[in-house]
Amino acid sequence: MSGLFRFGISIDKNLLDKFDRLIREKKYTNRSEAFRDLIREELVKRAWREGKQVAGAITFIYDHHQRDLLSRIVDTQHHYQKLIISTQHIHLDHENCLEIVAVKGNSREVQKLADTLKSIKGVRHGTLSMSSIGKGME
Amino acid sequence: MSGLFRFGISIDKNLLDKFDRLIREKKYTNRSEAFRDLIREELVKRAWREGKQVAGAITFIYDHHQRDLLSRIVDTQHHYQKLIISTQHIHLDHENCLEIVAVKGNSREVQKLADTLKSIKGVRHGTLSMSSIGKGME
Amino acid sequence: MSGLFRFGISIDKNLLDKFDRLIREKKYTNRSEAFRDLIREELVKRAWREGKQVAGAITFIYDHHQRDLLSRIVDTQHHYQKLIISTQHIHLDHENCLEIVAVKGNSREVQKLADTLKSIKGVRHGTLSMSSIGKGME
Amino acid sequence: MSGLFRFGISIDKNLLDKFDRLIREKKYTNRSEAFRDLIREELVKRAWREGKQVAGAITFIYDHHQRDLLSRIVDTQHHYQKLIISTQHIHLDHENCLEIVAVKGNSREVQKLADTLKSIKGVRHGTLSMSSIGKGME
Repeated sequence: MSGLFRFGISIDKNLLDKFDRLIREKKYTNRSEAFRDLIREELVKRAWREGKQVAGAITFIYDHHQRDLLSRIVDTQHHYQKLIISTQHIHLDHENCLEIVAVKGNSREVQKLADTLKSIKGVRHGTLSMSSIGKGME
Repeated sequence: MSGLFRFGISIDKNLLDKFDRLIREKKYTNRSEAFRDLIREELVKRAWREGKQVAGAITFIYDHHQRDLLSRIVDTQHHYQKLIISTQHIHLDHENCLEIVAVKGNSREVQKLADTLKSIKGVRHGTLSMSSIGKGME
Repeated sequence: MSGLFRFGISIDKNLLDKFDRLIREKKYTNRSEAFRDLIREELVKRAWREGKQVAGAITFIYDHHQRDLLSRIVDTQHHYQKLIISTQHIHLDHENCLEIVAVKGNSREVQKLADTLKSIKGVRHGTLSMSSIGKGME
Repeated sequence: MSGLFRFGISIDKNLLDKFDRLIREKKYTNRSEAFRDLIREELVKRAWREGKQVAGAITFIYDHHQRDLLSRIVDTQHHYQKLIISTQHIHLDHENCLEIVAVKGNSREVQKLADTLKSIKGVRHGTLSMSSIGKGME
């Protein structure tokens, strides 16, 4: 079951001061929220490692003048359409496009889709941003 | 100036076999493309480190039922509107939203925007996907 | 000043359960210690980024049969002797050596030493393990 | 079988110039060596992920005044002695010790040893430096 809970942390004053400075820089307004985010980051890493249901974004750059490239990108996205929620397309300049594909599904399949998109000749840089489907991250 | 160039790599046969197996797994069809991608990854890391013009995606999860949260997210995005190209919003389930913000600008400012969004109470997981504006990555 | 301090963390029961499972897997016996380690990791990353005094280990593999290689490695270590505390040398098999150099100093100089060792022809894999000089990490 | 091999890489002049600048900064004297190191890094990551035989270094900081701590560290190392080759111990200052444990074995067991050492109360920062046993990395 869910519900708010409170527990105590023992910490050396020196280390706490450093933590406070760190979270101020990262714009946190309270320690609990900073702490919860540290936990969530570990949980997300683990969900991806263990082949759980995840969400995320695949980001890549390409030159839209290469016509074959466009159709290869679209074909790949159709082949994996089960994983793809939507795609955002941005014209960075006359040549370069940034495409961001929002994905959700099994982490290993999402990884495979990211690899496939990145390996297409003409795709100049691809990254996979690993996030969560949100459940259990409250 | 641009233009295709060719040069030779000396490599032990053993290591090359392993490279070939690796890039086959990552779906590459030729070594040159795999090699170019290894370089691009290093270049992107460095552009981000050095405060250059970059592009990327900030991805985060939140519970849209918290009304204050929504307005804090929108306010933050307006404050940094210079860096934001567009936003993709996905309803993951009844509670959880995935928001992906396409960004372009100075890497340090983009980092600050990502930190600010991540630190908002109720934002459950945030990542910054670091990519490139594409120039010089051909 | 130093001294033990205690403060409360508010957290959703669900998220706390997940944290407890996570730290059990990572062998922690209490939450405070796990929490302190999460903070320390952030502090160490930042000390390295900001050019502070750090400690760490440079690890690399090489084939000791290449005689020139040995003298290049020793020369490099002598050139940076100010940063080097001691070196551990391990014979992995008939050909391969593992060398671990304990280092302490300015993070940028330590990085340069690591780069220089890694770039030597015949050094097959090098990593830099970033740790701390320990002060303020209590 | 082993033996030197040569093959060609096609690359845009612009991108090659950037690669050359990058490897000069990282102190490489030729492209082949830089390229081989990029491959080796990928191979090492994969060996660790797949539970292969690996080598590496576990680095951690602790305060030697805590006597129980010392015996817990030694006990742990004895329990995993099969994985441990040797240990380097450095007195960073009056309180802080840096200990670097050279390890070799199955990557998952090495990870477990690193987790166990890091989780000991009083161990202030631990890292695992992932390297290779060297075979097939020529």
